[in-house]
Amino acid sequence: MFQKVLIANRGEIAVRIIRACQELGIETVAVYSQADKEALHVLLADEAYCIGPAKTTESYLNMQQLLSVAMVSGAQGIHPGFGFLSENAQFAEMCEECGLIFIGPTSQTIRDLGDKVAARQIMIQHNVPVIPGSDQGIYTLEEAQKIAREIDFPIMLKAASGGGGKGIRRLNNLAELTEQFNSAQKESLAAFGDTTMYIEKIIDPAKHIEVQILGDQLGHVIHLGERDCSLQRNNQKVMEETPSPTLDEKTRSAICQTALTAAQAVAYQNAGTIEFLMDESGEFYFMEMNTRIQVEHPITEMVTGVDIVKEQLQIAYGYPLSYQQEDINITGHSIECRLNAENPAQQFAPCPGKINQLMLPSGGLGLRVDSGMYEGYQIPPFYDSMIAKVIVHGRDRSEALNKMQRALAEFSVEGIETNQEFQFDLVSHPDVVAGNYNTRFIQEVFLSEWLSESK
Amino acid sequence: MFQKVLIANRGEIAVRIIRACQELGIETVAVYSQADKEALHVLLADEAYCIGPAKTTESYLNMQQLLSVAMVSGAQGIHPGFGFLSENAQFAEMCEECGLIFIGPTSQTIRDLGDKVAARQIMIQHNVPVIPGSDQGIYTLEEAQKIAREIDFPIMLKAASGGGGKGIRRLNNLAELTEQFNSAQKESLAAFGDTTMYIEKIIDPAKHIEVQILGDQLGHVIHLGERDCSLQRNNQKVMEETPSPTLDEKTRSAICQTALTAAQAVAYQNAGTIEFLMDESGEFYFMEMNTRIQVEHPITEMVTGVDIVKEQLQIAYGYPLSYQQEDINITGHSIECRLNAENPAQQFAPCPGKINQLMLPSGGLGLRVDSGMYEGYQIPPFYDSMIAKVIVHGRDRSEALNKMQRALAEFSVEGIETNQEFQFDLVSHPDVVAGNYNTRFIQEVFLSEWLSESK
Repeated sequence: MFQKVLIANRGEIAVRIIRACQELGIETVAVYSQADKEALHVLLADEAYCIGPAKTTESYLNMQQLLSVAMVSGAQGIHPGFGFLSENAQFAEMCEECGLIFIGPTSQTIRDLGDKVAARQIMIQHNVPVIPGSDQGIYTLEEAQKIAREIDFPIMLKAASGGGGKGIRRLNNLAELTEQFNSAQKESLAAFGDTTMYIEKIIDPAKHIEVQILGDQLGHVIHLGERDCSLQRNNQKVMEETPSPTLDEKTRSAICQTALTAAQAVAYQNAGTIEFLMDESGEFYFMEMNTRIQVEHPITEMVTGVDIVKEQLQIAYGYPLSYQQEDINITGHSIECRLNAENPAQQFAPCPGKINQLMLPSGGLGLRVDSGMYEGYQIPPFYDSMIAKVIVHGRDRSEALNKMQRALAEFSVEGIETNQEFQFDLVSHPDVVAGNYNTRFIQEVFLSEWLSESK
Repeated sequence: MFQKVLIANRGEIAVRIIRACQELGIETVAVYSQADKEALHVLLADEAYCIGPAKTTESYLNMQQLLSVAMVSGAQGIHPGFGFLSENAQFAEMCEECGLIFIGPTSQTIRDLGDKVAARQIMIQHNVPVIPGSDQGIYTLEEAQKIAREIDFPIMLKAASGGGGKGIRRLNNLAELTEQFNSAQKESLAAFGDTTMYIEKIIDPAKHIEVQILGDQLGHVIHLGERDCSLQRNNQKVMEETPSPTLDEKTRSAICQTALTAAQAVAYQNAGTIEFLMDESGEFYFMEMNTRIQVEHPITEMVTGVDIVKEQLQIAYGYPLSYQQEDINITGHSIECRLNAENPAQQFAPCPGKINQLMLPSGGLGLRVDSGMYEGYQIPPFYDSMIAKVIVHGRDRSEALNKMQRALAEFSVEGIETNQEFQFDLVSHPDVVAGNYNTRFIQEVFLSEWLSESK
């Protein structure tokens, strides 16, 4: 097994990975920016190295620096966590070239799935349903108009190399397409050095359903069931649960099998997630594959008992999967709420600051809090506002919801604003309790109700 | 369901029960001594009442006062937790007379099983193997000598109404018996107003194996598997695990079936535990039944998924068990370590004081800390020294041990002495890792090694 691993991340996911390493007897190397020297991942790791200033491009995104620390510290592998360099094919390749094991899929897989047009083509070849749209890259307005007429408006025009919202347009009619095609393409060129565009039909209202995949280097691929991540705000997931309250058994089985097909199509190695959009008729469409651990992986762990991060480490080192598909049983129901240092009443403005008092709602059966906080910790203003994930597991959905309400009511963080009350009210809302929500729910129903009530 | 329940206890178990009530939508009434006004159970409950001075006989053991608070607050039931009044038949009876539901078995069951001679007789009648000894009460030295000759020395002479070590003698030969019978009987008379004695053969070396039982008011009784509690010091459990690393499947099945027979023999209602001693040949003997929730109940919860405290509440209110025997599957392995505010290097002297800094080892899959502590909390010197229970669940015993080592290494309590290092070294000891220990192990092997190494 690995003797030493570098964790190229910060916050709760770095802490989560360090703990998994410790339980496997692997020494850990933390890296941190100058703003993070008091962070929990630094305190918990066996070794810790400062890799630069607060600014991410000079620290957590500084590939050369990360590789240097890995070499100097004698780490044999790098776990990228999520965000930062976790889906950067170039970084994975640089690791491979340095003889370091990148704890994730191969750089080739990251590259193939990062090119959205190529990924669509692979899926189409393997009969995985994709969102209706262009099957190849689009380079001219004429091509775009032709496709748009075929699938009908509204459509999404996207950059093939896209990410971070760059080069993306929601277009409601031919006039808008004509007007905006060139500017979107220019944006893509500027951001990614690539003029390749593609078009997808808009699925709306939709459910966001994703399937957790694990694959090893020996060609075994399994799925760990689905997650319902439809409760979103500005395309950011807010609360996730598994099993989905919406899927019937037939659709659940179909979507998981489709995910397996998709993962097998790219001979997927390590942990990954296939994201689907499902329309109101129950038809589902491949959206993309995330080639990394997800924020919401714990809910899958709770219902399957599989420690996904430990599996990642073992797979990356060359071990076979320690589970076969028939070993995976879904037991009970799990929900995760993301606790952020933000003020929902002020357009969710981030609220970094010092945690003067902290009481985590631990204890009892089926409650887990993954966090990078501690009492006295100063949350720096430079990074993501997520400070903890509250994860519950109940015998059924009703017990899980009750446990989440209890946990959120008990959670006590003083010194900063958080979305704790927002989350409590969300998991107590009749529509959420009834399992009746889609990706529009927070923005179009809940938020306005909540803002008017909290005034 | 109950609308309001009074919790007649303090510390982590009071907190545990309050949380279970909250998840079931039950309002909670805490009680506290003057020394406990800042305790976590007081902060978490919906209502809290001071019931007297620090001294337990004037507060947590003050039956009249507890009943008054229950009546005044409108509580419909009283959960006694463990210790204090949890096995006091008179208190259970007083609750019954006041129309309050005592959340435990009937007062009659507590009384029957509290009389050790009567309990032995019930078990013998139902073919439950008991420790060889007297089948009836002993009142004279002559009777004692006769039995002692039959079963052979060494023997334990015990008071039938015994508890707290009063009236108990370990006797190695006839001369010691002759010399000490009268003094033991006098001690029993003074402590319990009862001269009834009984004799048991000493099973030593032994394994302490106990079986968790749940029974409802409709006559259903199930078991939730066994716990191995052989790691003890001065008859106090130190670490518990399930499944036992010692039992083979045949013995496990036999001991659980025997426990079920024992519980059915008394038409047991609510949660209870049948304690057995097992000798080196694998023969096991009924020792006693604890008619309450145990400290170590969480490890059973972790491997079965059954929330025992919620079941207690539901059963007490009259609901049927929410599980049948065939629903109970043991998954993985669980271990609990008891963290005490004490100094193992100073004869385990209690070390109450203020918790200046606290970092619980939360996060990740399969880790749970049940505690009544928080940062800034002042541990009063009047009560039990247990401050937290660290509970882990792994896919197998090896993973559970690794997780416990990680958790104990990470646990950070400043301001007081604890047995954290002692526990870490215990779960890391080769004999414990090999599952090779009995009730003598800590006292005769581990403690001396540990004390000499820590010097």
